[in-house]
Amino acid sequence: MSQPVPEVLAASLTPLTADKSIDNDRYAGHVNALLKNGCDGVLLFGTTGEANSFTVTERQAALESLLEAGVAPSTLMVGTGCCALPDTLSLTRHALELGVHRVLVLPPFYYKNASEDGLFNTFAALIEQLDNPALRLYLYHFPKMAVVAFTPELIARLAERFPGQLAGIKDSTGNREHTMMLNSRFPSLEVFAGSEMFLLEYLRAGGAGCISATTNLTASLAAVVRDHYHLPDAELDQQQLSAVRSVFERYPMIGALKGLLAMQTGDSGWEHLRLPLSNLDKDSVAELRHALSELNFPGQAD
Amino acid sequence: MSQPVPEVLAASLTPLTADKSIDNDRYAGHVNALLKNGCDGVLLFGTTGEANSFTVTERQAALESLLEAGVAPSTLMVGTGCCALPDTLSLTRHALELGVHRVLVLPPFYYKNASEDGLFNTFAALIEQLDNPALRLYLYHFPKMAVVAFTPELIARLAERFPGQLAGIKDSTGNREHTMMLNSRFPSLEVFAGSEMFLLEYLRAGGAGCISATTNLTASLAAVVRDHYHLPDAELDQQQLSAVRSVFERYPMIGALKGLLAMQTGDSGWEHLRLPLSNLDKDSVAELRHALSELNFPGQAD
Repeated sequence: MSQPVPEVLAASLTPLTADKSIDNDRYAGHVNALLKNGCDGVLLFGTTGEANSFTVTERQAALESLLEAGVAPSTLMVGTGCCALPDTLSLTRHALELGVHRVLVLPPFYYKNASEDGLFNTFAALIEQLDNPALRLYLYHFPKMAVVAFTPELIARLAERFPGQLAGIKDSTGNREHTMMLNSRFPSLEVFAGSEMFLLEYLRAGGAGCISATTNLTASLAAVVRDHYHLPDAELDQQQLSAVRSVFERYPMIGALKGLLAMQTGDSGWEHLRLPLSNLDKDSVAELRHALSELNFPGQAD
Repeated sequence: MSQPVPEVLAASLTPLTADKSIDNDRYAGHVNALLKNGCDGVLLFGTTGEANSFTVTERQAALESLLEAGVAPSTLMVGTGCCALPDTLSLTRHALELGVHRVLVLPPFYYKNASEDGLFNTFAALIEQLDNPALRLYLYHFPKMAVVAFTPELIARLAERFPGQLAGIKDSTGNREHTMMLNSRFPSLEVFAGSEMFLLEYLRAGGAGCISATTNLTASLAAVVRDHYHLPDAELDQQQLSAVRSVFERYPMIGALKGLLAMQTGDSGWEHLRLPLSNLDKDSVAELRHALSELNFPGQAD
């Protein structure tokens, strides 16, 4: 088992105001609701959080605002991976200074032809320049978006070189065999699945847990699977969790999640996405909501 | 013909100091040499310029430094496309304020599933928020790196909506048929080929010219083809140009160009690349140089 207590983290949405800047109040409310509804932690500024659509300054200000609103830094993981290493350094250093030790780092994702050595040297430079033993760095493996990927060979080199600071991986391939493979191959790392689609099976196999977009809506249900995974009844909960996730996978994920939150909470502020993403049309949101109600899944308002 | 006077632009390398910050002196020297050697203009911070490996602040400071060194803003085109629209806005507004009107803009390239409407709205927001009639915006089509692409339909929508400010396209597909197609389909736009591989044929077909990485070394030769394209003798020059380009295409382009410049000038400062890219090993540089000398192509030192 890669870690004694499995965790469910939500990859938080980033709520926006009408002018598409980050809505700090709604953000703090949402993060607190996710924690209250059973999440062990919250990932800020992952793909679901539209991270790369914000400037470094906006991302730093939003984190500061959340902490000022009383969110405990120990409950947070922050996405900090940019194309430019100095930006990744700034964001990571900033998080560490504020007491957030878990960071999720994309590879530099513009140059698709970077070599394995080049990627290794990027992460080595990052960790060495931070020079902070409190760092808990998670590799963000999401080849569908980043295209640049972490091969098992690259992960092995980094884990061997930085055993104290390379903490784990978020595997957003959605490929269960790949996640299982990483978990078996790297017992010293916390390998998180990128969705809750096979959470039960993964926890039973000793997996660290999941960091998922849909957990913005399914936190309570995912928490039940986490808490009861050793019990036979958990299979019914997982079926429900997988069925809900499957409905979301028919739509553009972020627009669907924000659209549903807007409809459930009656708070139209949830409808805004940063360009180049667009909100989901109201008919599709209604269709989505209908499909979920047929599963007897109301979701949960903040 | 899309424009009366065809142009050859070099996609400039960005020289670095040993600590991998931008070497402003060497940068100004290189840009001036490219202009002196026959380039009509120089693109700063394209893919060859390692644009996305620098912060917004670094890019702005480097442009200011070049202009302070006496480079004329009318000779420059600047790459300004980032993942975050506010960063693209900052870089573009900064260039315009300094009198550089030509900007080359990548699509927001993190979200690979952005819709055509989302991309259209991103560029519409950019152009409308800049609200500057002097803007000459070129779309940077480089699907191999950005993955997010400009479809002809998207280009047509933007050209129709912003006839004054949408100036053209850099087509970095390397696909001659695709460049020819864009040039035929959009007679009101300047469609630049992303390499000089088929420059002669393209100029004879009425193309706007090229913006190319290898022109960092082949400026004089490309200028001859540009100046003599209506003469039969230009075919020999194009053969030489294509042969040289073909040699470079065997290697990682930026490392090869910087490595060759370092060897030719004796200035080891040219060897530095920003992570995640790496310099080319010395044996490969020597092999590259040998292959070029067999073509009787010495390249040109700054």
